[in-house]
Amino acid sequence: MNSRSPDRRFTPAPPDAVAAPSTRVKVRRDTKRRGRYDTDAIHQILDATPFCHLAYIVDEHPVVIPTLQVRIDDHLYLHASSGSRLGVHAGTPWPVSVSVTLYDGLVLARSGFHHSINYRSVVVIGDAILVSDPQVKLTALNATVDHVIAGRANEVRPPTARELEATAVARLPLTEASAKMRTGPPVDEPDDISLDIWAGVIPLRTAYGDPIPSPDLPDGIDVPDSVSGMMEA
Amino acid sequence: MNSRSPDRRFTPAPPDAVAAPSTRVKVRRDTKRRGRYDTDAIHQILDATPFCHLAYIVDEHPVVIPTLQVRIDDHLYLHASSGSRLGVHAGTPWPVSVSVTLYDGLVLARSGFHHSINYRSVVVIGDAILVSDPQVKLTALNATVDHVIAGRANEVRPPTARELEATAVARLPLTEASAKMRTGPPVDEPDDISLDIWAGVIPLRTAYGDPIPSPDLPDGIDVPDSVSGMMEA
Repeated sequence: MNSRSPDRRFTPAPPDAVAAPSTRVKVRRDTKRRGRYDTDAIHQILDATPFCHLAYIVDEHPVVIPTLQVRIDDHLYLHASSGSRLGVHAGTPWPVSVSVTLYDGLVLARSGFHHSINYRSVVVIGDAILVSDPQVKLTALNATVDHVIAGRANEVRPPTARELEATAVARLPLTEASAKMRTGPPVDEPDDISLDIWAGVIPLRTAYGDPIPSPDLPDGIDVPDSVSGMMEA
Repeated sequence: MNSRSPDRRFTPAPPDAVAAPSTRVKVRRDTKRRGRYDTDAIHQILDATPFCHLAYIVDEHPVVIPTLQVRIDDHLYLHASSGSRLGVHAGTPWPVSVSVTLYDGLVLARSGFHHSINYRSVVVIGDAILVSDPQVKLTALNATVDHVIAGRANEVRPPTARELEATAVARLPLTEASAKMRTGPPVDEPDDISLDIWAGVIPLRTAYGDPIPSPDLPDGIDVPDSVSGMMEA
């Protein structure tokens, strides 16, 4: 079980903010304790998981769906089928928002009001635009595979021209982004601390189960380095 | 390690769809294999985790943030500080979207193109509106605490009138919702199956670490039933 303190996951970063926070991504609550705008904090969170949620507007109504992201330098790359909304709409700059969230712990206080979650999250806002350069597209797709499981892109059969064409890749600049996080124990009302109520944190982490070989896998093919590396990490 | 097959998590549900899918929530890809609109599938996913992402519009641009949800009957309840955007804007019906996603496995194919994720997700679209009835508000807040950790609401100090006032609760009808999921092994190109490349699924699950008592916890207070129940589940 992983019970390391999330407090130790970030070293103080230099104040080279990605951008002065706009009102759209500005952290509105607990700004002192929770808001962060420095590049390192933002990049570390984006690099910790490929899972993200993408929001866009359809008929003047917001819609949010799960998808995958990967960061390369100062851009986030999102991929989808060419026939998907992203593939169709991002031909011209497409207003989107992406959120990446890591859940580190359940924070149990003496009151329901002070219950909380320890988490690290990034919110990015901007206009996504389709990547047309096939080389950049290939790089982004390989980076996405490697973000899901490090080293995997080199183990698989390379994409065909048809596969590249069937995949849409959109790029979103990280110019308007903020990180928000909560770490540490519950913060209770002073009068509640003496109550006979347990308080503390239940750490959360993502665990990997034993690899399940595909039913059509020929005999004698071992679990590859990418998988054994991930299980050990 | 948990390596149960995600395929077995859903029993076929009766065709009492939450609503005829609107174009906004309609599953556009792999509809046969992945799209679901029946109430049971949707409720099971919403009930499996409190974590969600909420999208709304600010200055004609979508924004998505992480928050918590709980389902009571045919509504989703979201909570936030009274001073937050949700607290301020949902006084009149506020167009939002909520997505809940459970990640069940990494799907490793022989090609990058056929890599995928096993997941279950729900997308809800609608207009959220603030709950003003203090009794409904209290019920929703307790249900949220219990959704984070079952049985916890009964263990804690009940909310004060001031705390209830400082908390905004919004309700979103589940009339426009869809579930989408992927289960099972990778689906490779027929020509790729004989390649000397491992293919299969790495199951994912959320694991709980050992409870960390709050530094200010008085001696002699044991871990409560809610926590021990969760660790055993």
